[in-house]
Amino acid sequence: MWSKETCLRFHLNSFVFRTHTCGELRAVHIGQEVTLCGWVQYRRQDLFIVLRDFDGLIQIILPQEETAAQLKKILCDISLESVITVTGTVISRPSGQANPNMVTGEIEVRVQSAEVLNSSRKLPFETKELVKKSEALRMRYRYLDLRSSQLQYNLRLRSRMVMRMREYLCNLHGFVDVETPTLFKRTPGGAKEFVVPSREPGKFYSLPQSPQQFKQLLMVGGLDRYFQVARCYRDEGSKPDRQPEFTQIDIEMSFVNQASIQKLIEGLIEYSWPEEKGTITLPFPSITYAEAMGSYGVDKPDTRFGMKITDVSEVFRDADVSFLRDALGQPCGVVRSISVPKGVVSVAIFYSADRQQNGEKSELCRAAGARVGDVLILTAGDPNTANAALGKLRLECATILESKGVALRDHNAFNFLWVVDFPLFLPKEGNPEELESAHHPFTAPHPEDAYLMCTEPQKVRSQHYDLVLNGNEIGGGSIRIHDMELQHYVLETVLKEDTGLLLHLLEALDSGAPPHGGIALGLDRLIALTVGASSIRDVIAFPKSFRGRDLMSNAPDLVSPEELSTYHIQVSQPSSQAHYPP
Amino acid sequence: MWSKETCLRFHLNSFVFRTHTCGELRAVHIGQEVTLCGWVQYRRQDLFIVLRDFDGLIQIILPQEETAAQLKKILCDISLESVITVTGTVISRPSGQANPNMVTGEIEVRVQSAEVLNSSRKLPFETKELVKKSEALRMRYRYLDLRSSQLQYNLRLRSRMVMRMREYLCNLHGFVDVETPTLFKRTPGGAKEFVVPSREPGKFYSLPQSPQQFKQLLMVGGLDRYFQVARCYRDEGSKPDRQPEFTQIDIEMSFVNQASIQKLIEGLIEYSWPEEKGTITLPFPSITYAEAMGSYGVDKPDTRFGMKITDVSEVFRDADVSFLRDALGQPCGVVRSISVPKGVVSVAIFYSADRQQNGEKSELCRAAGARVGDVLILTAGDPNTANAALGKLRLECATILESKGVALRDHNAFNFLWVVDFPLFLPKEGNPEELESAHHPFTAPHPEDAYLMCTEPQKVRSQHYDLVLNGNEIGGGSIRIHDMELQHYVLETVLKEDTGLLLHLLEALDSGAPPHGGIALGLDRLIALTVGASSIRDVIAFPKSFRGRDLMSNAPDLVSPEELSTYHIQVSQPSSQAHYPP
Repeated sequence: MWSKETCLRFHLNSFVFRTHTCGELRAVHIGQEVTLCGWVQYRRQDLFIVLRDFDGLIQIILPQEETAAQLKKILCDISLESVITVTGTVISRPSGQANPNMVTGEIEVRVQSAEVLNSSRKLPFETKELVKKSEALRMRYRYLDLRSSQLQYNLRLRSRMVMRMREYLCNLHGFVDVETPTLFKRTPGGAKEFVVPSREPGKFYSLPQSPQQFKQLLMVGGLDRYFQVARCYRDEGSKPDRQPEFTQIDIEMSFVNQASIQKLIEGLIEYSWPEEKGTITLPFPSITYAEAMGSYGVDKPDTRFGMKITDVSEVFRDADVSFLRDALGQPCGVVRSISVPKGVVSVAIFYSADRQQNGEKSELCRAAGARVGDVLILTAGDPNTANAALGKLRLECATILESKGVALRDHNAFNFLWVVDFPLFLPKEGNPEELESAHHPFTAPHPEDAYLMCTEPQKVRSQHYDLVLNGNEIGGGSIRIHDMELQHYVLETVLKEDTGLLLHLLEALDSGAPPHGGIALGLDRLIALTVGASSIRDVIAFPKSFRGRDLMSNAPDLVSPEELSTYHIQVSQPSSQAHYPP
Repeated sequence: MWSKETCLRFHLNSFVFRTHTCGELRAVHIGQEVTLCGWVQYRRQDLFIVLRDFDGLIQIILPQEETAAQLKKILCDISLESVITVTGTVISRPSGQANPNMVTGEIEVRVQSAEVLNSSRKLPFETKELVKKSEALRMRYRYLDLRSSQLQYNLRLRSRMVMRMREYLCNLHGFVDVETPTLFKRTPGGAKEFVVPSREPGKFYSLPQSPQQFKQLLMVGGLDRYFQVARCYRDEGSKPDRQPEFTQIDIEMSFVNQASIQKLIEGLIEYSWPEEKGTITLPFPSITYAEAMGSYGVDKPDTRFGMKITDVSEVFRDADVSFLRDALGQPCGVVRSISVPKGVVSVAIFYSADRQQNGEKSELCRAAGARVGDVLILTAGDPNTANAALGKLRLECATILESKGVALRDHNAFNFLWVVDFPLFLPKEGNPEELESAHHPFTAPHPEDAYLMCTEPQKVRSQHYDLVLNGNEIGGGSIRIHDMELQHYVLETVLKEDTGLLLHLLEALDSGAPPHGGIALGLDRLIALTVGASSIRDVIAFPKSFRGRDLMSNAPDLVSPEELSTYHIQVSQPSSQAHYPP
């Protein structure tokens, strides 16, 4: 953990024109001559200017003497958001005029000389108003939005947290920061990978979604402990709060097991955690995938509040409610419930304790842990469906309750949680007879289930682990398969993949691959949750819109056919596709 | 400056199966029980195994007791490059059997238990032989080549140097590490930018060659001091020792001048410099572009040796050598010379002092600083051509001399050098009537020459600076134009660029842009020169071949027409281009 103060060893004023930042001046500086550089935030005609830089605000007193008339005129004529440098003396504000809402509010600077470094045009809106404008406008004028104290804070906190992570990994634990290529080969099933045409006709690089293959190859190469703050790419079209490029803290180690990687990551989070966000307790709690689905109906539970799912099947085994009885009549049919505290605000379909048939009432309340005034929500069906529905309703109820003023989740709490023992394979969506990897094909099976790999692979748990924070997945990793034959079996026999595309990896595993595992943390999401931002766009300097556009520069943009011919491609307009066979 | 020892605060054995690395064991460990993990480097039947990890080699003594027969058999049957873990006791080697060539040569480990973690197939060659094989084979089996001590050293040194740079910038000087997008808009004249098709028909992102626009926009946004270890892209087709993606240490500051940025970078290099490479003297020497061209015939002089260019025009003003006299008869015609010490090994066209006409001999030797036995090389023509030719010959002579055993350049010397006062514009290649930016259009003019901007822009020097190391450009930067009107003038009037593509930047400059400047260091080249690698490929974990191919995975590769249709593109084979109008 680090505090802002412990990090302020650095010199913010080395190498530059100023002697101090605007925000650092205090009463102890009274009497000193200072030179400041900043932006004109506010001006009261003839009297003072409020000057701003990244570090804060300071009040500048204009000279009133006749001899300084020219200096005064310059400063009075200047437009807001112009950039100036002033030299002057720090003085105490007159008695009774201190501003307790301003950290520099006890003092002001009486200007002796000043220079306009760059004047600003009249902006279409005040910079400080920008935060209230539409996000499209904010992104169009991102360079103005970046001047806000909130974005300055977010980007600086991000930089500090990443630096602390690097110190922990590189300086404390001997990890090697290795850069891996982003121009790579298309991975099997890599449907979300951007393609990059090369100068070889018909041949394309892909921008990988993660350095997965490279990090494993580094372990085969004996690098032992690798990390990278890795830029990754995923083309998901228009998904809210996703970015076509994003950053992950990518880690891989040799000769390690799952528990050790979890311990490493707990130490990493603790070491990089900003003190101002409270303390973090280690170790993080851990639950299995089965428990998460059973109690929360989701594999990334928000444990800041209860409302756990309970099984109330037995209550309704002989109930006089036909759809419940029908459901229970199916194989594996269940009735499950969540109890919404003080829940009469909810509009969902519900059975309140009061409406319940008398005979079942007390038994249901006991089974579901409900009290009078709570609302019970029931679902009936197969366990997966029943749980998943309640998992969604649980989160929606929480949002509804909070919107009605019920205190449910502590928004200053940071509930880290490990979710472990995921299934290794899942039935393919659309073709449930076949299996696909729950995460990726390089995940190792759980040692206790390895004997099932050939007979009942669908029952095998994996050595995958997710790190969850307040209901958001912020990381995931696994122990990898290091045995070539097992990897070949998984790819070819279980997943029916074309192993030819991964021949280099199989050969590498067969050339002395050490046991290894790793994890990737989603940096954008982690920082957004840490600073309490509602979107990852608030922790990225130049984010794309949810349609993947850069609204400032207007990217992506047209490219001339001549430029495209270098890459042997041409645009096929949707309407004309039929005319030109591929 | 940092030494390997001061950085060894970290725990290389935290979180893993081993207790020690193979390379760290010494006589002080005698008597300790240790657990090691590593690769079988060498085996002498029945007696010992040499085990290797990233940290070094250790000799493992096999048990000879009857009771350990099974353990012995396992270790005797194992193939080279298999991965094992052994537990045993560190013992002293028998008297007289210590190996002084091995840092662990005083000791060995008597194995008590062992496990084969992964056996290796029989490799097509021994890993330690790989360094002698063709580069194509090394890249095909990069994961084996990475096991070499040289590549391990290079990648680990790179990681440590970058970490030290981050500490200097982030912890000591308050720089903010900001990640900027790599999916961006095509820049004007960005002929070397890879394109990335988007899901919008006909619209493309570009992979930028540098974060130039973003770093300037961050300054407009008040970030004050930015740095990034930035991935950049440049499509140059097949150029030796270039990579389609590369890394630069990217830096930008507000309220700064050229001298301050140079001082910042000198401090950065000093702070990150590995002690084992000797000390570095600050400040770095600085010469102007004009001096560099005049004395060395190149803008990135290798100052590890002399052989400077001298003007010998006066000697030949009335000489009886027609081509010299003709050249001197032209306007600006000159005769220039370098003196190659002990140079009779050179095969270039030359006039040796001995062959010179007697009348001019002593005068020429005096003017050129030549001594008997030296070879003088002369060029005649306009100064630029004469100098450039001698600049190339100077380097070629150095290589030839060294190949003949003459000690010329100290290959342990690191001659850093600033080159300053570049021209702001150069005549366009192919159309010398027009001007193009010598570096990029955002470079500010030299304040002393600003008055020439409207009348004689070709005479204006810039505030650009290059950092040169042993004749290689390892960095370049400039003070930028922060005045919108000047930037508009440069783009539109001088360079005839379409300002529409840079409207966002012009608007930003007009919205309160602070004076700012920065630099970018080519990390790959800097590390390669530091470790003495002949190619940047030796300091990159997974480099591309000089044709831009990944020989391990076989990228770039074919992509199906269906996958391309997502991006509304199709391949136009060179031969079929004519059939399908664009």
